[in-house]
Amino acid sequence: MYCYFNGELMPVEQAAFKTNDLSVLRGYGMFDYFRTYNGVPFQWDWYWQRFKNSAATLRLPLPLTQTQTADILAELYKLAQTPEVSYRFVLTGGYSPDSVNMVQPNLLILTENLPKDNPEGRTKGIKLLPYEFVRDMPEVKTTNYLHMVRLAQEMKSQNAADLLYHKDGEISELTRSNFFIFKGDTLITPDRNILHGITRRYVMELAAPLFKIEVRPLKMEELLEADEAFTTSSTKWVMPIVQIGRQIIGNGLPGQRTLKLWQLFEESVKNYGLATLETAR
Amino acid sequence: MYCYFNGELMPVEQAAFKTNDLSVLRGYGMFDYFRTYNGVPFQWDWYWQRFKNSAATLRLPLPLTQTQTADILAELYKLAQTPEVSYRFVLTGGYSPDSVNMVQPNLLILTENLPKDNPEGRTKGIKLLPYEFVRDMPEVKTTNYLHMVRLAQEMKSQNAADLLYHKDGEISELTRSNFFIFKGDTLITPDRNILHGITRRYVMELAAPLFKIEVRPLKMEELLEADEAFTTSSTKWVMPIVQIGRQIIGNGLPGQRTLKLWQLFEESVKNYGLATLETAR
Repeated sequence: MYCYFNGELMPVEQAAFKTNDLSVLRGYGMFDYFRTYNGVPFQWDWYWQRFKNSAATLRLPLPLTQTQTADILAELYKLAQTPEVSYRFVLTGGYSPDSVNMVQPNLLILTENLPKDNPEGRTKGIKLLPYEFVRDMPEVKTTNYLHMVRLAQEMKSQNAADLLYHKDGEISELTRSNFFIFKGDTLITPDRNILHGITRRYVMELAAPLFKIEVRPLKMEELLEADEAFTTSSTKWVMPIVQIGRQIIGNGLPGQRTLKLWQLFEESVKNYGLATLETAR
Repeated sequence: MYCYFNGELMPVEQAAFKTNDLSVLRGYGMFDYFRTYNGVPFQWDWYWQRFKNSAATLRLPLPLTQTQTADILAELYKLAQTPEVSYRFVLTGGYSPDSVNMVQPNLLILTENLPKDNPEGRTKGIKLLPYEFVRDMPEVKTTNYLHMVRLAQEMKSQNAADLLYHKDGEISELTRSNFFIFKGDTLITPDRNILHGITRRYVMELAAPLFKIEVRPLKMEELLEADEAFTTSSTKWVMPIVQIGRQIIGNGLPGQRTLKLWQLFEESVKNYGLATLETAR
């Protein structure tokens, strides 16, 4: 696979960070991640906007405009020679003379193969472990994933797919995806201490004609009354959650409403971008 | 300057992290930093113990024993050809196949020149900006210094040397050093939500015969009654603090007790390690 690194396209193996990069020394970095459908970057405008906002909060000037970046994405797509790719943007504090002050950020854009699908999770639902934590600057997609990496083995050993962050009784999100429950035909998702997921937003648009949607603080105790639960992300789509710690959600099976949203999502992305491609011809 | 990177000594410019290192992608890394006096690493046993503890908490197996590492420090010292050096240890989650799971950590040991001294800070005292925050896993020296880097320019523009973290009215620490106040002859320093600084420990040993020491939660409002304040770190030694936001500490000048500790520290490190060197001959 190829990547873009500070102005150049190159094979991924050739790109490397010097030891004084602030992501290495000080964890100062942010990223974003999205994929193509039919070779077209999914919701590119939304992702770019979010990336730009994260960069502004971290005071990292973006070295490229959206148009320049779109051209690079197209180049990388051609070089990948595979029908669908994922893109990973990584923007770091750059090389620092004193391990504190920033001079110029480093921008890396990677193409990656799509991650493996999880058909078992989709049909049987996944289990989460509750974990008391709230992300620092949750609205920014920083690279700080300490707890996710630290507890990866523990999750595996407990057959859990992820952590559910909660603090002072309030649910925020999973380590890298958003959280929803259904109470009857009402869809509820937390409004604060979260990263505003692009898939979350897309799924809420799909759900709007069918369900009542409440975007508000969500208490841990509400899990007791939840009929269904699911998580959304660019790689998980709409993934049913059937267990959180010892708590079984609803009847312990993926819910009908959740599966309906998953189906709507699948249909919706099947033809994603085809109109755009048509126009381009 | 030379460094040690995953089994080899090399010029620092030759060491580099591949793009899938978990410190770059997920902020998964920890470090430590200490210096020599008379060419002897200061309190090496204490630093090694802390490094080992941090690594264990992050589930990073150490690739070297203490003795092997000491040999590497000696080699790097010879290569540096300068009377005193700083060492920076960086241990990351290593190269990950899927940007989540760890395989093998990367260990980097850098030699660096000592940072510039701050004689003006020492004679006039420094100013801090209060900042509402508490570090995640404060007892571990992770590489997460998001706020320090993000606010570096803001500090400069306000003539502040650092941030003072506090949360729910309780003071913890500065971004990379510990905090003390004097009320009369009583020395007070926070006991929780802090990194247990080696210099903090050393200064408390120096202070024990002279002052009453209280290690306990310290409230923001106690700054009103503080006669003196200072911070300790391997590079700052005992640095007087004379202002925190709009709050002047004591009479706004470095305190006599603080200067006494600074003087004791200076005397104590002047001959540091000389006995050891004598024995080695």
